[in-house]
Amino acid sequence: MKKVAIIMGSDSDLSKVEKAFEVFKALEIPFEVHVYSAHRTPLEAKAFAENAAQNGFGVIIAAAGMAAHLAGAIAANTVLPVIGIPIKAAALDGMDALLSTVMMPTGIPVATVAIDGAKNAAYLAAQILAVSDEGLRCKLIALRHEAAKEVLEKDQKISQKYNA
Amino acid sequence: MKKVAIIMGSDSDLSKVEKAFEVFKALEIPFEVHVYSAHRTPLEAKAFAENAAQNGFGVIIAAAGMAAHLAGAIAANTVLPVIGIPIKAAALDGMDALLSTVMMPTGIPVATVAIDGAKNAAYLAAQILAVSDEGLRCKLIALRHEAAKEVLEKDQKISQKYNA
Amino acid sequence: MKKVAIIMGSDSDLSKVEKAFEVFKALEIPFEVHVYSAHRTPLEAKAFAENAAQNGFGVIIAAAGMAAHLAGAIAANTVLPVIGIPIKAAALDGMDALLSTVMMPTGIPVATVAIDGAKNAAYLAAQILAVSDEGLRCKLIALRHEAAKEVLEKDQKISQKYNA
Amino acid sequence: MKKVAIIMGSDSDLSKVEKAFEVFKALEIPFEVHVYSAHRTPLEAKAFAENAAQNGFGVIIAAAGMAAHLAGAIAANTVLPVIGIPIKAAALDGMDALLSTVMMPTGIPVATVAIDGAKNAAYLAAQILAVSDEGLRCKLIALRHEAAKEVLEKDQKISQKYNA
Amino acid sequence: MKKVAIIMGSDSDLSKVEKAFEVFKALEIPFEVHVYSAHRTPLEAKAFAENAAQNGFGVIIAAAGMAAHLAGAIAANTVLPVIGIPIKAAALDGMDALLSTVMMPTGIPVATVAIDGAKNAAYLAAQILAVSDEGLRCKLIALRHEAAKEVLEKDQKISQKYNA
Amino acid sequence: MKKVAIIMGSDSDLSKVEKAFEVFKALEIPFEVHVYSAHRTPLEAKAFAENAAQNGFGVIIAAAGMAAHLAGAIAANTVLPVIGIPIKAAALDGMDALLSTVMMPTGIPVATVAIDGAKNAAYLAAQILAVSDEGLRCKLIALRHEAAKEVLEKDQKISQKYNA
Amino acid sequence: MKKVAIIMGSDSDLSKVEKAFEVFKALEIPFEVHVYSAHRTPLEAKAFAENAAQNGFGVIIAAAGMAAHLAGAIAANTVLPVIGIPIKAAALDGMDALLSTVMMPTGIPVATVAIDGAKNAAYLAAQILAVSDEGLRCKLIALRHEAAKEVLEKDQKISQKYNA
Amino acid sequence: MKKVAIIMGSDSDLSKVEKAFEVFKALEIPFEVHVYSAHRTPLEAKAFAENAAQNGFGVIIAAAGMAAHLAGAIAANTVLPVIGIPIKAAALDGMDALLSTVMMPTGIPVATVAIDGAKNAAYLAAQILAVSDEGLRCKLIALRHEAAKEVLEKDQKISQKYNA
Repeated sequence: MKKVAIIMGSDSDLSKVEKAFEVFKALEIPFEVHVYSAHRTPLEAKAFAENAAQNGFGVIIAAAGMAAHLAGAIAANTVLPVIGIPIKAAALDGMDALLSTVMMPTGIPVATVAIDGAKNAAYLAAQILAVSDEGLRCKLIALRHEAAKEVLEKDQKISQKYNA
Repeated sequence: MKKVAIIMGSDSDLSKVEKAFEVFKALEIPFEVHVYSAHRTPLEAKAFAENAAQNGFGVIIAAAGMAAHLAGAIAANTVLPVIGIPIKAAALDGMDALLSTVMMPTGIPVATVAIDGAKNAAYLAAQILAVSDEGLRCKLIALRHEAAKEVLEKDQKISQKYNA
Repeated sequence: MKKVAIIMGSDSDLSKVEKAFEVFKALEIPFEVHVYSAHRTPLEAKAFAENAAQNGFGVIIAAAGMAAHLAGAIAANTVLPVIGIPIKAAALDGMDALLSTVMMPTGIPVATVAIDGAKNAAYLAAQILAVSDEGLRCKLIALRHEAAKEVLEKDQKISQKYNA
Repeated sequence: MKKVAIIMGSDSDLSKVEKAFEVFKALEIPFEVHVYSAHRTPLEAKAFAENAAQNGFGVIIAAAGMAAHLAGAIAANTVLPVIGIPIKAAALDGMDALLSTVMMPTGIPVATVAIDGAKNAAYLAAQILAVSDEGLRCKLIALRHEAAKEVLEKDQKISQKYNA
Repeated sequence: MKKVAIIMGSDSDLSKVEKAFEVFKALEIPFEVHVYSAHRTPLEAKAFAENAAQNGFGVIIAAAGMAAHLAGAIAANTVLPVIGIPIKAAALDGMDALLSTVMMPTGIPVATVAIDGAKNAAYLAAQILAVSDEGLRCKLIALRHEAAKEVLEKDQKISQKYNA
Repeated sequence: MKKVAIIMGSDSDLSKVEKAFEVFKALEIPFEVHVYSAHRTPLEAKAFAENAAQNGFGVIIAAAGMAAHLAGAIAANTVLPVIGIPIKAAALDGMDALLSTVMMPTGIPVATVAIDGAKNAAYLAAQILAVSDEGLRCKLIALRHEAAKEVLEKDQKISQKYNA
Repeated sequence: MKKVAIIMGSDSDLSKVEKAFEVFKALEIPFEVHVYSAHRTPLEAKAFAENAAQNGFGVIIAAAGMAAHLAGAIAANTVLPVIGIPIKAAALDGMDALLSTVMMPTGIPVATVAIDGAKNAAYLAAQILAVSDEGLRCKLIALRHEAAKEVLEKDQKISQKYNA
Repeated sequence: MKKVAIIMGSDSDLSKVEKAFEVFKALEIPFEVHVYSAHRTPLEAKAFAENAAQNGFGVIIAAAGMAAHLAGAIAANTVLPVIGIPIKAAALDGMDALLSTVMMPTGIPVATVAIDGAKNAAYLAAQILAVSDEGLRCKLIALRHEAAKEVLEKDQKISQKYNA
């Protein structure tokens, strides 16, 4: 199976990005984690993106805050689908990272998920790989059913408490 | 090859969404266009999403403005990757549609592109299909080279004019 | 008397939503609480909305955060008045939920109250039921008088302290 | 049947507010239109609100731009449900009117619809009246079916053109 | 000397509003504090504004949060200058109160100061009274000199520490 | 009577600022107009502010766009009340000028009116002068009555048309 | 004298960027114009930045819209000062480009000027070169005097018209 | 070597501004720190700016919050490059300071860095001085290499932990 790469612009984002790893483990998707900065290590970020396809990656996830260029810089150097996670930093509530990630110019899309949405980035990566992988597709459907079940159990609990 | 579905919430968005069609034609990707509203035709939107995978679709693009729920409503009923195009409407400069599309809860990601970014939605759909389609991948790389060439030609023109 | 339904998108919103319950108790309005997610349990949310009228509900309140589609998804499946409470989540200060709830397309209104405004959602629901219920109307007027009295008592306290 | 009042803060908003009238005519709901300013004619606005219930009104719609206090000023003087339409004026894209209308303090809710959403204000008023009026409820359901049909006809047109 | 009235929409704003009192004490300006809500006690707010001039007030300060209508509601009932203090509440960082206070329609201005700017509201009130009060004017100039001196002392401290 | 000064940061703002002149003429308030830039003519702006009081001015109005420092720069050099008009320029919808004008630090208030609110700046200046001028006060009250009458005439017109 | 490079992300920005050229001509600063896209021609953008210093450039100006990464991508590959001009594009009023340009991570600053502020980018570049060029410094001071004179002439014109 | 001046509008910003000092020490750039307020000590701020060039300064950094006029007020009185640091204060998340600093009118640029971006202001100042100082230029390049190395070490750590 193709691997997913998860690149973060700074290791200070690890606690947020980590939530993606659980999803990959649950779905048995191989993944690789890296710290590359679009601005401090532009060469390494570029090199990783250029070689990602032939190194067996199918999707790249990039997480960055502030003027979050990482996802765009990766996307400029590969035609693999690139998923961007805008990270909320100290000021502006994450709006800066969101706009810097999603408002990409024609030709170089970044598939942007919610601010700090590492888990959804992982689900999206899985959905992309599942387009040609019926087994993964089934696992995703199963996860959906579980998620629904969880909600309904909570509904039941709350129903019992309030709707007696 | 798997098809791409492009759903718009209102036919008034057609002139913006249409720009995606050219990309699909250039890349010879089969696509299908629909008008379904998350709110006015929830049944049809849901039915389309539920059956999309077995109807041969690999990716779904959804374009909507204002409280743009369409992409999310589609995503809730399929595990295919769903790409959201926030459409700029009369007020709020497209910010409403952007936030309504991208800030999805855990478990149901929408791969959001720029406001009115129909062309990039198409490129992203193509990139997703290309994960398992080497031929399409090559076409995407060729398009990138063309895009670069265009920029460099413009650079040359402007260089000749100003940097004599 | 018709009942009010209060649906929240996630049980993590309970502490905010709960404040509506006191209002209903004070006004002796029967209510029912549920947890349904527009995206994780779209079927149940839809089913609830479709059957709400014949199940004796007169108004539905829906509370959700981020790309808050819940109120809209409910509204798409009933002609009962639907009140939306945008919930402030981790990022963006509640602006995402506000815009996702209030900017509804023509034909499917959501009566939106303030961010985290659960109490006002309850008052609004009561006002709606009171349109055809003189007794409830009187209770609401009485509550207003009480609220005014409270403000004036605080005024008096502060007057005594500062305006000697 | 109870009447709906539509109050606008300035007659310059008439062209936007007018769209509500068609809805009331289609649904045969009696309505009355007024121009009262929360700031320039506070007495008349207050008097109208205080007497609205005994003058046969069931719902009041208030439309205003900028620091849009009209809906709140009306709501402060009645326990009838008050629907607020934030009007987009010259600057700030309607955001000022939206926040001034929706962020009401506890006890005095305003049922806010989208910026310039006069039609939805009318639908919401109708839904409120329909809570105790089965006939009106049926008309609203019929309108929904029509709206759905219109969307599906547009879908068919576009399907024929693009999905041959 | 004419008095200054300071009205707050809720006594929960007292800790912020209080900072104005020190300014008035330092400048020996008589002031009176009240809690009136534009929405919960509209009658009292209106009555206060209508009688303020003949009750010896020269300026009215109004502090409120969220859809902050208080300053506007006061201003609609007097031609005394009204100063508005937008109060930052739980959501939206005070932007809602700022826009609700400052974006007033033609004819009914509110002299708006910064979010939570109680001290500056007091200074502005003093400046207004000083237009026809040379003694107060001198005190204000003296305060300015003191404020400048304080800054320069801090500059000296920091200079000594860093610019040795 | 004390004069009002109206300073604009650029003569391109004249068409917006001009609306204040009519108010002054109607109220027979002497006024003087100037173009001074906080940044391009800081000396002249400062000199004007420093001498304004002894030159017979009672209030200064300053209008500027973008990073609108003019009102603040004037306010830093006088203890006369300074009214700021944020001017909407090409980008950002006037939000930049609003925040640059209103968010002043403690000690140096600017009485901020709505974006492009030149007329209200004039009314506010008149209200400030009227604090110690009973005649002007009466004129302001008369203007309010006229404004109310105008609204009520419009109400009557619209009533006749729609509420037959 | 060292040259200034002006790079734009797309030739559609030329009409806005061009305004910088006049400044350079007036100040006799040699400059060179290029079109490079951070995303479509990342190699050329990088190569230009890497060689800029030894090619005789002293400052680089980069203009881009939307998720404006160009200035940051240039800055990541040189230690020359990089000036960013955020360009206002179709949606979001230029706020996206502003945040994407200015919110750079530690170590890689971009000297950001106003949205569409090409002229100021040129002035800033000149100021930077003037740090070590007394002649250029004098020209800049002369330009300031001219700009002040222009404002004062406008003041005189308006004074004559209104302050007779 | 020319010195860098760092001016803060209030000594409460010291803990944020201090981070610039380390950069200057590491690069052996002489610097001087001051507290001047554009509004409370306009004379001193102006005097400092006017004399900065002949006092041996090459660049001035100004840090201020809220309606942050300091950088602009400095820039209006010198043709040295002025770097603005918008400081995040209690409300509005720093957006007020950002817009007040960056949206400068033509002729008076402020080189704006990120909100609270004191370190980057220092790097930018160093880059400006390095335009004519090859030794400083080399130190900056060395710092970049170090920064890259740090990122790559973090990458290695994380690689070892997750990519075994």
